[in-house]
Amino acid sequence: MKTILQEVDTSLPASLKRLFELLRIQSISADSRYSNECEKAAVWLKKYLEEIGFKAQCHLTKGQPIVLAQSFVHKNVPTILFYGHYDVQPVDPITLWTINPFEPCIRETATGEKIIHGRGAADDKGQILTFLEACRVIFNQNRSLPINITVLLEGEEESGGEHLPEFIARYKEQLNCDVSFICDTDMATPTRAAITAMVRGLVSEEIIIHGANRDLHSGLYGNAAQNPIHILTQIISSLRDDQGRITLKNFYEGVPEISDHVRALWQKIGKNDNDLLTPIGLKQPPGEKNYRAIEQTWCRPSFEVNGITGGYQEEGFKTIIPAMASAKISFRLVGKQDPFKIRDSFREFVQAIVPKDCRVEFKSFGAAPATMVSLNNPRIERVKKALDEEWECETAIVGSGSAIPVVGEFQRQLGIESILIGFSNPDDCIHSPNEKYNLRSFHKGIRSWVRILYALQN
Amino acid sequence: MKTILQEVDTSLPASLKRLFELLRIQSISADSRYSNECEKAAVWLKKYLEEIGFKAQCHLTKGQPIVLAQSFVHKNVPTILFYGHYDVQPVDPITLWTINPFEPCIRETATGEKIIHGRGAADDKGQILTFLEACRVIFNQNRSLPINITVLLEGEEESGGEHLPEFIARYKEQLNCDVSFICDTDMATPTRAAITAMVRGLVSEEIIIHGANRDLHSGLYGNAAQNPIHILTQIISSLRDDQGRITLKNFYEGVPEISDHVRALWQKIGKNDNDLLTPIGLKQPPGEKNYRAIEQTWCRPSFEVNGITGGYQEEGFKTIIPAMASAKISFRLVGKQDPFKIRDSFREFVQAIVPKDCRVEFKSFGAAPATMVSLNNPRIERVKKALDEEWECETAIVGSGSAIPVVGEFQRQLGIESILIGFSNPDDCIHSPNEKYNLRSFHKGIRSWVRILYALQN
Repeated sequence: MKTILQEVDTSLPASLKRLFELLRIQSISADSRYSNECEKAAVWLKKYLEEIGFKAQCHLTKGQPIVLAQSFVHKNVPTILFYGHYDVQPVDPITLWTINPFEPCIRETATGEKIIHGRGAADDKGQILTFLEACRVIFNQNRSLPINITVLLEGEEESGGEHLPEFIARYKEQLNCDVSFICDTDMATPTRAAITAMVRGLVSEEIIIHGANRDLHSGLYGNAAQNPIHILTQIISSLRDDQGRITLKNFYEGVPEISDHVRALWQKIGKNDNDLLTPIGLKQPPGEKNYRAIEQTWCRPSFEVNGITGGYQEEGFKTIIPAMASAKISFRLVGKQDPFKIRDSFREFVQAIVPKDCRVEFKSFGAAPATMVSLNNPRIERVKKALDEEWECETAIVGSGSAIPVVGEFQRQLGIESILIGFSNPDDCIHSPNEKYNLRSFHKGIRSWVRILYALQN
Repeated sequence: MKTILQEVDTSLPASLKRLFELLRIQSISADSRYSNECEKAAVWLKKYLEEIGFKAQCHLTKGQPIVLAQSFVHKNVPTILFYGHYDVQPVDPITLWTINPFEPCIRETATGEKIIHGRGAADDKGQILTFLEACRVIFNQNRSLPINITVLLEGEEESGGEHLPEFIARYKEQLNCDVSFICDTDMATPTRAAITAMVRGLVSEEIIIHGANRDLHSGLYGNAAQNPIHILTQIISSLRDDQGRITLKNFYEGVPEISDHVRALWQKIGKNDNDLLTPIGLKQPPGEKNYRAIEQTWCRPSFEVNGITGGYQEEGFKTIIPAMASAKISFRLVGKQDPFKIRDSFREFVQAIVPKDCRVEFKSFGAAPATMVSLNNPRIERVKKALDEEWECETAIVGSGSAIPVVGEFQRQLGIESILIGFSNPDDCIHSPNEKYNLRSFHKGIRSWVRILYALQN
């Protein structure tokens, strides 16, 4: 293994070159204008996987293509399923980027840190390639991998992931494995690895309120005509009470209290509210009282408006009452909260507020439950040790506020557990302008996977 | 006068040709990309006024140019000041237009009504030309006008009218007159003229809420980071109570109760809530309880959000918490409500809601008080009679929800009263897609002004 780790170090420039190739592909899945770019990314990955001994296929779906690849070594070694996504978030607001999002580059900070810049650097192309480059180096040295590996790379993680569950159902047999690895989460600190043991679920909805049959002059109709923006703000503002709690009926059904054990574990990581909020310019978490900021984001359910739009939004002023207004709203779920019950409860809540002479339209963008990874899985110990050794520091067991719906799908459809290991950092600006990935994360991420693959062999 | 009225009828096609020329100019004042079009409209009007014997000038301001023209006949006849605006509203959402907004045309309805279509047809280019075409026909016949006329045409009525007050102060002497006429209001019904005696004031503000220093991933930060959209919805939704009353401190100071006299006058017009709301597809006025819809719009103050924007608004879903969100908000004022006090009160109200670690930015788009026109002005009777004769129906005295800030400026700076007469109809879709103007309004509007100008001579 030592030779292999050395080879990771010496071939890092070549690994980076391949990462940059992938980062240049504008695979924004939420915007249909970029469909062909998603296809390009899938084809690129298929070719990549074939180069390192995988049997790979690009499966067309009704949405973005899914890459499925397999490398079978021997029936006596375990089989793992690696999951990642090649699609990326939209880049707007583009004016806030200091580089072209699809012209990746490396820049050095004042403190000498080397940083990879570009959309997808951290979420999730950079993370995918830590695993695949580890496989490549091992394959180049040994012409074989230490264990059986199935790779599943999808292209709709950032846009609802509509077609993945059906795909998993269809290819159940090929996806069968001992355990799955997902590389789409953060480090505990920039130099301390983390295994994520809890992942929040997600319900995402767009609501569109329709009022008058046309935009109205607000002077001629103001007061007397329903304003869809007002209705929307009533809905949104009444979804939370003054204690930061979400007001939907039965919303907290299935939300577990944090155990003292977990609370103590997290205390050890030593992240206070300021550690989370100061870097983003904020001070006071607006969520539920009596919970620390990391508790609010790791293990409490949340509600956020991700976008709102209505009426005149250009320069200057236009005194209208718009005919419609809409908002994109998401709920993060924990424990055993039922995403479908919550969606129904939300829709009822909205219907009760919308006046009789107006109309509401709902669009669903997905509903997935939260998942907890069992810490009793014996492999977790081995993986943890591999990470401890690479990072020379005890690996943290953390929660994540981010939804990774595939964890739930693997559990439900394949009956397998997932181990979540990622090397990004909370300030990597994923989903934001100027996304980045620490070169250390990329480099030591590859080394980490080499260690993990060998640890799993024994 | 009879010959002149006949000439109005025969030269209507030429009048329409000129109107279409003006309607083709894309003079959207709120959008700086159209500045040269505003200039084009001003130059076009200057040339027009010179053709009919006016001394006209195009005054450059820091905003859009102002056209000022004078035709002095004799010191023994009265002097009137005619005001209108050549700028138009933006055209978005452009997809809802059934014609190109700047390619005017006439279409016949199923009931045989002839309708002029195009942005500005009713607000205010069509209305301006009813007056100017009346002057043109009289001038062509007599080489002179019956009274002294000053014409003031501005280009920022739709975008805050920032530079007009200063202009009025500077050209006080040239603007001096006996009474002013403003042609920017509606008929009582499509065949019954109206003199508007009350006009609501307007305070327009844009508020921009700044939260984190960048867009955040809503999974990683949801609950713990302030969401500017949530803050905005709290502000907006708490500006009205469940009785439809606006909750700003001292907001109703100076709001007069409707007198029984006026209530009876309006009852006579016979507009019930359905008359106003059915054509726009609504049923229940959401404003103050115990007021009918026309009362709510004509003589009660209002609050409307004219636009709201924040976060991801494109196709699909993006789970972010935006760094900022903004709304364009306007208040319509009545009676003696003080626009500056209300602006201050609004800003205080907002500041009290915005959390300490967020920041709010205010942009003002104007603040004008409401105005009432004195019905005791002796000229009102003569004008009313002229309108009665043209429309063969008793002219209604009405209120208007729409703000016409210039009325207040004339009163304050020049000490003159304004008489508001217009020929548009509430369903003309001003400020909306598919703006229109009845050909009858245009034709009989010109005839009305001929009658009024002669009525004022005596």
